Amino acid sequence: MAKKDIRERIVEAASHRFHEFGYNATGIQDIVDAAKIPKGSFYAHFKSKEALGLEVLSDDARDTEATLTLNDETSPVERLREHFNILVSDYHRLKYRSGCLIGDFASELASNPNFRQATLHHHSEWSNNLEAVIRQGQARGEIDASRDSGVLARYLLDSFLGAVLRSRIARSQDAYDDFLEVCFDILLVKGPTASPMATKK
Amino acid sequence: MAKKDIRERIVEAASHRFHEFGYNATGIQDIVDAAKIPKGSFYAHFKSKEALGLEVLSDDARDTEATLTLNDETSPVERLREHFNILVSDYHRLKYRSGCLIGDFASELASNPNFRQATLHHHSEWSNNLEAVIRQGQARGEIDASRDSGVLARYLLDSFLGAVLRSRIARSQDAYDDFLEVCFDILLVKGPTASPMATKK
Repeated sequence: MAKKDIRERIVEAASHRFHEFGYNATGIQDIVDAAKIPKGSFYAHFKSKEALGLEVLSDDARDTEATLTLNDETSPVERLREHFNILVSDYHRLKYRSGCLIGDFASELASNPNFRQATLHHHSEWSNNLEAVIRQGQARGEIDASRDSGVLARYLLDSFLGAVLRSRIARSQDAYDDFLEVCFDILLVKGPTASPMATKK
Repeated sequence: MAKKDIRERIVEAASHRFHEFGYNATGIQDIVDAAKIPKGSFYAHFKSKEALGLEVLSDDARDTEATLTLNDETSPVERLREHFNILVSDYHRLKYRSGCLIGDFASELASNPNFRQATLHHHSEWSNNLEAVIRQGQARGEIDASRDSGVLARYLLDSFLGAVLRSRIARSQDAYDDFLEVCFDILLVKGPTASPMATKK
């Protein structure tokens, strides 16, 4: 097996198990068993489970961020909706057994300084990206400009991660439906204050 | 030491460690060490760590629910605000090292059917209580009655639990400030549609 393949298999197996069972419930032995590699190979690629955990978290954050289109001509609100819809359809495909690793690790590993710093970093990056799109929406008159874009972005992300929590214990999409219904209603400019820009393509 | 004291010490030590380090990172040995009791005493009171975990979760949920006043003459919105303020001041006192066990266990233990069922049960009870107060607020014209009280209650709880997540990694109150700012703004009846009831005592 090529060295690169082994590394990828470790990351993939770890990602799967961290998502479903959590970080502490997953041992290196579980990972090498799932990856079908000898245990010695693990340490040729990662110096510790923590190093692997931080890489898996970082990959997960990158994949999540890639689903948000930061700049194009389409409606910022539609890009936000698309972003969350892609994530939710992924969770749906996995029958809500998995959620978002940033939220999971933020909860389970908050007492570990390295994970706390890493989850906070990814959380900030994510909400900064959401804020950039929200500002575009405010500039186009689609999103309520009377609210602070940073507060809205961070609040949007927090409430999404709260919905992820519930979806996993309920094993259903209900929490996302509530999130999408209420959250987008918060964002949108309503009634007489709506700018005519809001309907432009 | 009286038998009752030992049980209480086990529950207290476990609660403290589950909150800060999580369920899987806490061994029975850690708990008996922290409780300063011999390991054999543990099994005289609990048949397993899981049985203890479910009891600690249930205690935590009961304490949380007790901070929401379900029925009295004061404003429902003020009772909701008071409820979250009490919880947040508790997290503040603990320097945001601890959060809400319902959220923590929902994330970390979603793959365990017993914990999944228990967290879902406590989450539902909590949101049902929130819904009862929201309905009172809608009846008094304080809370936007055009929104479904169940959706609002569940969404309120989800976004609170999302704020708890961020508070723990940021070790700050910022997430709650965003939550309180945006969430109560969502609830409140605004502008010309506000009923005059809203200002009555």
